[in-house]
Amino acid sequence: MTHPRLSLNQATIKHANLEQALAVTAAAGYQAIGTWREPVQEVGLARAAALVADSGLRVSSHCRGGFFTVAEGAERRASIDDNRVAIEETAALAAAGAPGSRAVLVLVAGGLPDGDRDIVGARERVRDAIGELVGDAASAGVQLAIEPLHPMYASDRAVISTLGQALDIAEQFPAEAVGVIVDTFHIWWDPQVLPQIARAGAGGRIASYQVCDWATPLPADVLLSRHYPGDGVIDFASLTRAVEDAGYDGDIEVEIFNQQIWDTDAATAAERTAEAFEAAVAPHLSATTAVRSA
Amino acid sequence: MTHPRLSLNQATIKHANLEQALAVTAAAGYQAIGTWREPVQEVGLARAAALVADSGLRVSSHCRGGFFTVAEGAERRASIDDNRVAIEETAALAAAGAPGSRAVLVLVAGGLPDGDRDIVGARERVRDAIGELVGDAASAGVQLAIEPLHPMYASDRAVISTLGQALDIAEQFPAEAVGVIVDTFHIWWDPQVLPQIARAGAGGRIASYQVCDWATPLPADVLLSRHYPGDGVIDFASLTRAVEDAGYDGDIEVEIFNQQIWDTDAATAAERTAEAFEAAVAPHLSATTAVRSA
Repeated sequence: MTHPRLSLNQATIKHANLEQALAVTAAAGYQAIGTWREPVQEVGLARAAALVADSGLRVSSHCRGGFFTVAEGAERRASIDDNRVAIEETAALAAAGAPGSRAVLVLVAGGLPDGDRDIVGARERVRDAIGELVGDAASAGVQLAIEPLHPMYASDRAVISTLGQALDIAEQFPAEAVGVIVDTFHIWWDPQVLPQIARAGAGGRIASYQVCDWATPLPADVLLSRHYPGDGVIDFASLTRAVEDAGYDGDIEVEIFNQQIWDTDAATAAERTAEAFEAAVAPHLSATTAVRSA
Repeated sequence: MTHPRLSLNQATIKHANLEQALAVTAAAGYQAIGTWREPVQEVGLARAAALVADSGLRVSSHCRGGFFTVAEGAERRASIDDNRVAIEETAALAAAGAPGSRAVLVLVAGGLPDGDRDIVGARERVRDAIGELVGDAASAGVQLAIEPLHPMYASDRAVISTLGQALDIAEQFPAEAVGVIVDTFHIWWDPQVLPQIARAGAGGRIASYQVCDWATPLPADVLLSRHYPGDGVIDFASLTRAVEDAGYDGDIEVEIFNQQIWDTDAATAAERTAEAFEAAVAPHLSATTAVRSA
């Protein structure tokens, strides 16, 4: 049986198009899916929303906006505008999803622009971009969700590396409009992770809990170094309990970038994900929150 | 001209034996070297000390002890005993080096033991091991120096990932006996890096400042992903000024693990290191501390 709080992030079955991804996810007994922009745009937003509605699935988040570190100019304007489109997508998909869908847009900060060594300045530009978008997000009923990425991506993907940093930015805005993503892969190593999860929960900032595992040696492309929960070294017991204790009772996504998993067929990956979640994560969820209220 | 505060960490010219390393370093105009245990043990400590004395070089640090995360038992006892030997080596080499040598033993915490997911417990075992060794270090006039490693090594090399964590442990012991290493490669991404450098300096805890650069894409073996200062994205201006402002006026080591650099001949690597340091780091050192007092 697939856990009622488990959501399959579409990146885990990257080679499926939206229609296939929805079908595979529903057939495997999931109640929720995390969508990605590219497969949504491939069919267009109206058709994507109709497919989501037909699937009967909740939408747990929409991935991803962000990439906010370039200096003022045409590229930055294009990025901000594109994030406005992403906010619309997020709202439309959540409205189309089953009751309990969350209008959460995952944001990846972006890395250092070429030739730029000023990481402090880059971080300020992330905050400023969120400040520009927060009104649009609030109007659309969307929560922007800053995702700290592992520090090994600080130069080329995300200058926001810790939950504490993400919260420092998020807390400058209303919680309904700006939250954070708690993703075990990115933050398991952080000595401050447990108190920062508590801080995020206390402020109503946990937009999503994502679980996948860390193992070494890292593959040649470190972007693809995620594993099924249980196949690595992450202590899902302490992290999951911390997220529960912080009051988060929403869907829990499994989002895995891994070439071997992408090379298996989507139905197999969906099934294997559910098994891994049941073994490594579900035992640490309290019974009272295991059945999610819509 | 090779900068008077620049020290060549022996790992940068890994394929040279101790005698060759000392000769190359002195010939390139350096005043200091950071030694490694393996090449010292290859010739024996007495001979190594004699070679160091003959070289006229200062010893800036000795690498490396540590690996303290295994649970109590024979392996842990062997590791503690081996660190006692490393303390003796450190004292002997610093005594043999030119005036201004520092008896600093660099410590790498160690990763998660096989099958262990309890990173909090592993960190406690690091602190406990240092507690066992601090008396020996103090007696020998050696400063143990905890080196936080980049979080991408948290599972397999070092469960201490940030300067703040390293200081949390170091501050439980006298500053003369336990300090920290400030290595740009490992901590440049940390949003807390500047205040933590100030904290380290205020407490007299900066045992060494090490500089090399971060660039992406990372190589297949992420252990070998270090670059000459200036060849990556690290802001040596802000970090170097912070270390200066924190009161550190000792030698500055360049320690690079990089297959391409190891594949060049040692004299070329020593020269290239000095040039890179001069261009990327030296401009941020204040004139008054550029001539080091012994």
